[in-house]
This record gives sequence, structure tokens and C-alpha cells, in this order.
Amino acid sequence: MKDISKIAAAVKTSTTLKVDALFKQMKADGKDVVGFGAGEPDFDTPDNIKEAAYKAIREGQTKYTPVNGIPALRQAVCDRLKADCDISYNANQIVVASGAKHNIYIALQALLDPGDEVILPAPYWVTYAEAIMMAGGTPVIVSAPESADFKITKSQFEAAVTEKTKLLILNNPSNPTGMLYSKEELQALADVCLKHDLYVLSDEIYYRLLYDGRKFTSFASLGEDIKERTIIVSGVSKTYAMTGWRIGYTASSTKLAEVMSNYLSHSTSSPSTISQIAAVEALNGPQEGIDEMRKVFEERRNYLCERINAMPGVSCRKPEGAFYVMMNIEKLIGRTLGGVVINNSDDFSLAFLESGLVALVSCTGFGCDNFLRLTYAVSMEAIKEGMDRLEQFIK
Amino acid sequence: MKDISKIAAAVKTSTTLKVDALFKQMKADGKDVVGFGAGEPDFDTPDNIKEAAYKAIREGQTKYTPVNGIPALRQAVCDRLKADCDISYNANQIVVASGAKHNIYIALQALLDPGDEVILPAPYWVTYAEAIMMAGGTPVIVSAPESADFKITKSQFEAAVTEKTKLLILNNPSNPTGMLYSKEELQALADVCLKHDLYVLSDEIYYRLLYDGRKFTSFASLGEDIKERTIIVSGVSKTYAMTGWRIGYTASSTKLAEVMSNYLSHSTSSPSTISQIAAVEALNGPQEGIDEMRKVFEERRNYLCERINAMPGVSCRKPEGAFYVMMNIEKLIGRTLGGVVINNSDDFSLAFLESGLVALVSCTGFGCDNFLRLTYAVSMEAIKEGMDRLEQFIK
Repeated sequence: MKDISKIAAAVKTSTTLKVDALFKQMKADGKDVVGFGAGEPDFDTPDNIKEAAYKAIREGQTKYTPVNGIPALRQAVCDRLKADCDISYNANQIVVASGAKHNIYIALQALLDPGDEVILPAPYWVTYAEAIMMAGGTPVIVSAPESADFKITKSQFEAAVTEKTKLLILNNPSNPTGMLYSKEELQALADVCLKHDLYVLSDEIYYRLLYDGRKFTSFASLGEDIKERTIIVSGVSKTYAMTGWRIGYTASSTKLAEVMSNYLSHSTSSPSTISQIAAVEALNGPQEGIDEMRKVFEERRNYLCERINAMPGVSCRKPEGAFYVMMNIEKLIGRTLGGVVINNSDDFSLAFLESGLVALVSCTGFGCDNFLRLTYAVSMEAIKEGMDRLEQFIK
Repeated sequence: MKDISKIAAAVKTSTTLKVDALFKQMKADGKDVVGFGAGEPDFDTPDNIKEAAYKAIREGQTKYTPVNGIPALRQAVCDRLKADCDISYNANQIVVASGAKHNIYIALQALLDPGDEVILPAPYWVTYAEAIMMAGGTPVIVSAPESADFKITKSQFEAAVTEKTKLLILNNPSNPTGMLYSKEELQALADVCLKHDLYVLSDEIYYRLLYDGRKFTSFASLGEDIKERTIIVSGVSKTYAMTGWRIGYTASSTKLAEVMSNYLSHSTSSPSTISQIAAVEALNGPQEGIDEMRKVFEERRNYLCERINAMPGVSCRKPEGAFYVMMNIEKLIGRTLGGVVINNSDDFSLAFLESGLVALVSCTGFGCDNFLRLTYAVSMEAIKEGMDRLEQFIK
């Protein structure tokens, strides 16, 4: 039969999903495995949000909605961006889609022509690289070392810009590193964007999960000129424990919002009507639950980092936001663990899962060797057990 | 600022949505308008399906699912295809996405390379043409006249095939024409696909809405060789009045299912978990409601066609499936109606909405002049009122 699409054929399965599949298989086989893989809160969706969904279904709000989202949801996004980040958008600049991942994909399809270059700081969430290539673009990786808190500098950024560069992707706070760019650091990157006429896709989905009293600066809040070329990506998944509801959104220029809406109108239509109505309640309803969840994450983070840094051979920086830790295993390279010679973090991940019964995500797929990603969006009990097993494994 | 994507910038707003927007604006302004535009059942989602959704939410089934859909839903699709169409698939060949439109888009992205040609019978649902172009393909339109019941013939099809042809898109029964290909007619098209090594995207979403006791033949049921190159598209929206839940699916070769799953894993992830669980109940639960709904549609169709064919200047064929009628206005071209000279169906649509207060969809966007699409997925009361107004308008 004729060949299928070259681009589609080249799309790789997500590495995080691969570990997750093996983990779930082992669990199904009755093995006592502990998982640090999936990036979703272990909390349940709050009751007020569930109630809004029941009501929507009961009242028959189960029909098509406007393609870019119901007006109430787009307005709720504007109100939240104003209250939390002090940026003003109108509802026509908001595009709701079926999860923040979907918004990222649509934004890249809307912006990129084949051959366009996108600057992507590493370590990066694996989907960015794939989604750039799915839009015909070329990821240009700029590596940020652990010693720089995994953050790229202005000069690194500028050195990577070419005639073909169209966009910078920034994830702040970052999955997988948990690090946060300060206002000054963002301003330095924004200057380069303005100088070289670049767009910025600023994925800010973890912006309400910050620790040690840190304050968040949205990229779009740096000034009108930079706001015009910024696409903010966010959603309700992480902040309101709504991963399975699939609601994300962008805030952008009106022109880009129109193009993205048209693109959605022929590629998916609107997201689930019920989920949209639930998301209105999430954004407009009581917000106290977030801080409670955040405090639990903070405690888990503190414990997890202490345990890791108390063990020989592994170490980590203390994350500033999101719910991930990057564990450095450089010193274990060349050693034999669980009967396997560890040449890289893939070896470690597989060996630890098979003989230590703990699932961690190797960061090779994130453009970063000798690190593993752990999430602390799992129970304290699981974290304790996982750390005990790690201690045993690397002894 | 730099140009955005050429492909995305060229995507047109859906014509059906344009009329719908004007209709809703007039309604919001307090005008007494009647709408025949939107292609969604006016029935509410059945209670057993709603109950399944309440239960899922209550039990916290609100997390990420496998990217291609929960196993129970993929199995339910297999069981339904076996029971209704006598075709055997396994769950690995099913890919669930956020609505059948989403499945169509993903299938085209998975199949097409830039420059590939796709044969598209006209009149066609407007999204097919746009989605082909969004995947870098070229739609090759083959027009089927009303005198042929809007169906293309084998020789028309074969004459359009070139070296670059990769795919035929068939919508059976058809939106907008309501016509149904018989088994023999499908076999003739299948022969051409086999001879020229073509894939077939067979959109069968209306397959359970057939009238006058007609029987449906799925394209994939014609034989193993044609099944291997067919992608069946369907979903729960039309059959179970679940438009806003956004669940569609494909059945295809295992290889293509894997590629589409990988594509989804980096472009959207899975559809709403709640909607997936509701869809399992839709497919596995009692099916009697469909026939009741179908009978109501059949009565409305009969009435609507009688009224149209009793008026001077307009006419229609009696549709065999789905819930659309194509109204021929050829004889009105050149006349002045509502103070406007009618040169085409766009003029008619606009004039009738503005001075007759009825919204119909002009079929120019569907590759077909001098026709308007009416849906009978609206109440009998609305149909009667709309026909009275049409009588007045064309007098």
C-alpha cells in the first residue's frame, strides 16, 4: 500500500507513556510497584466543580458550543488572568481547546511554516519537540545545565537565533525541572524576542503551584509590545485536579485567536460542553482549595529532596514550582545496579523498575542525559516507600 | 511581525457556522427567527447515558486515560461494529478522539503528504475540503448532480484518479445530501480503490439514521482487502444526541491506528474521561431510543419534502438517511425576493434570513450551487413555521 504521511510516521510515542505502560502492566500482573511517572495530581476534582457538571448534564447543556469556547468560560479566563497576573485580555482573545496540549499543538500549527525554527530550552517536556515537528518546524535545542538551575541565559538564547527563527517556547514554572524564571530573567529574554521579531509560546500551566512564597510573572505582563507577540498557554488540569476533563486555553492577539478558532472549527470543534461548564466553576468558584493542595505538594517536595540529597550517588536541586524533581545520577554512571551496568538514565529507569519496582521517567527524551524525573503529585506514603527502595537499590 | 502559517491563515470559517452566528445574533436581538442550520438532534441525551456520567464523576473517574481511549470503549465500538455491520475489529484497531471531526482530521494528518490528492465527491460537508488542505493535500472535486441522486459513478471516480491520488472520502449516508450508496454502488467504487491502490476514509456517522426500511452497508464489510485500506469514521454525537460530549472513533488497520494514537499523544491526549464512560453506556446500553428518534426524523422528513415539492420554484429529492434535505432553487435564480435579486443560493440564504426570518445553509460552501441545505433535526413546529414563511417569501 502507499506510504502514509512522513511527518505522522515519525511521531514517537511519549517516553513518559512508555514507562507508564510498563508500570501499569506490572501492576496488573499483581506486582507491588510504586509509580512516580504520571504528571497529574492525586487529588480528586473538588466537589463544587463536580456539582456544576451534574447540573449541566441534568439541564441538557450537552449540545455544540461556539468553537472557541462558551463566552462565560472565555470571560472567566480573562478575569483570572487579570486577578492573578494583572494582564488585561478580552474574551475574543481567548481560545479554549481540549486540554493545554491541544492548545500548544494548535498554536504551533497556526504559527509555523515548514522550515521555521523554534528555540526550545532543554530539559523540555517531550511534547514540545514532537509538536514543533508535527507543524513542519525544526526544534533548535538550547541546553540549560543544572548549575544554571536549568534556565537559559539571554546570550545563549540570542546565539541560537537565525533568520529562520520564529518562536521561543518557554515553560514557566517548568516541567520537568520545576524551576521558575524571575521577572528580570524573563525581561532579558523578552528583549531578544523584540529585537529579532520573535513570537513566544509561554506555557504557564503550573503558575499557581509555587513554593517558598515565590511570586509569578507572566511573560505577557512585561509590556504591551511583548504581550502582542506572546501566546499564553494554560488550563484547569493541574490547578484544579481536572486532568481528565480536558480543558486548556490560550490568550493571544485577537488576530491569532481568530486563526486558531478557524483551525479548530475544521479540526475538532469545541471541547466537551460539560467540561467547559465545570471549568467556569473552577475558575470563578472558591480558590482556597488550590493553596491547600499547594501546601501538601510543598511538604512532599521538602521530604523528597531531603531524602534524595541524603543518599550517596544521587542529588537534586530543590524545585521552585510545579510538581517535579530532577534527580542527578551522574555519579552512578558505570556502576552495576540490580545486575545491570548503568550507562545512562534509560538503563537506570528500566533496571530500577524491574528489580527495584519503582517507576521514574528517564530524561533522555527531555533532551537531558543522566537525570530522572520524579513527580511528587503522588501520596506521601508512596514517596516514602519509593525513597526506601531507592536507598536499597543504589546501596 | 513575522507571517503566521500559510496553511492556517488560509483556513476558512465554516459557512454553516457563519449563518448560525447571524441567526443567533438575531435571536439574541429578540427577533422571531427559525433555524434550519445546525446539524444536531434537538433531542436530549438519554437518561441512562447521563446516569453513567454522574457515576463516573462521583467515583472520581476524572483522570487521564490511555491516549486512544479506555479499553472498555474501544471494545464497545468493536461489539457495535460487529452487531450492526458484521465487521470484525479488535480493540487495538479502534482510536477514540474528541469527536468524529477530530478523527477525520487526525486520519488525514496520518495519511497525507503535501501534494497528495484526495478525491472528494460534491456536494460535500465543508470540513472535508478544509481538513484535506490543512494536511497539505489537494481536494479533487468530483461533482454528482441531483439527477444522479448526488452520487458519483465508478467511471467518474476512475477518471479523477492520477499518480498522486491517495484517498477517497465518502460520507454515507451523506451530509448534506441525505443519499445512501447501495452495496453494489460501493463495490464499484471499491474496485477502483483496489485497482489504483487507494485508501478510503468512509465517514459512516449517520449509518443508523436510515428511512423507508433501508439497509446499510459499511465500506469495510466489502472484503478483507478493502477493509485493510478503509478507515471507518463514526461517533456517538448524532445517534445518541451527544453532540456536546465530543466522542468520535475510527476503525482501521492496526498500523494506521498506532500512527494515529502516537499523533494524538502529542497533539491532544485522550478525550474527556467522563464523555468516554458515557459513550460506553451509549454503545452497550439499550438501543431502542435510536429507532424512536429515527421514526420522528422520518415523519419530519416526509412532511418537509411534501411542503417543499408543493411550492412553485423549489423542489427536493427525498433523502434516504441522515437528517438533511437539499432544496433546489434553480428556478428562482434571477427573480427578486425580499427586495433582493437572487443570483445564487448565498443571496437566497441571506435574503430569506433577513426578510423571511428563516436560517438555511447555502450549499456553495459544499461545492454545489443553487441548493440550500435544511436540517430536520428541529421540531415539527419549527418545520411548519419555516415552510409557511418560505411559501410567503417566494410568492
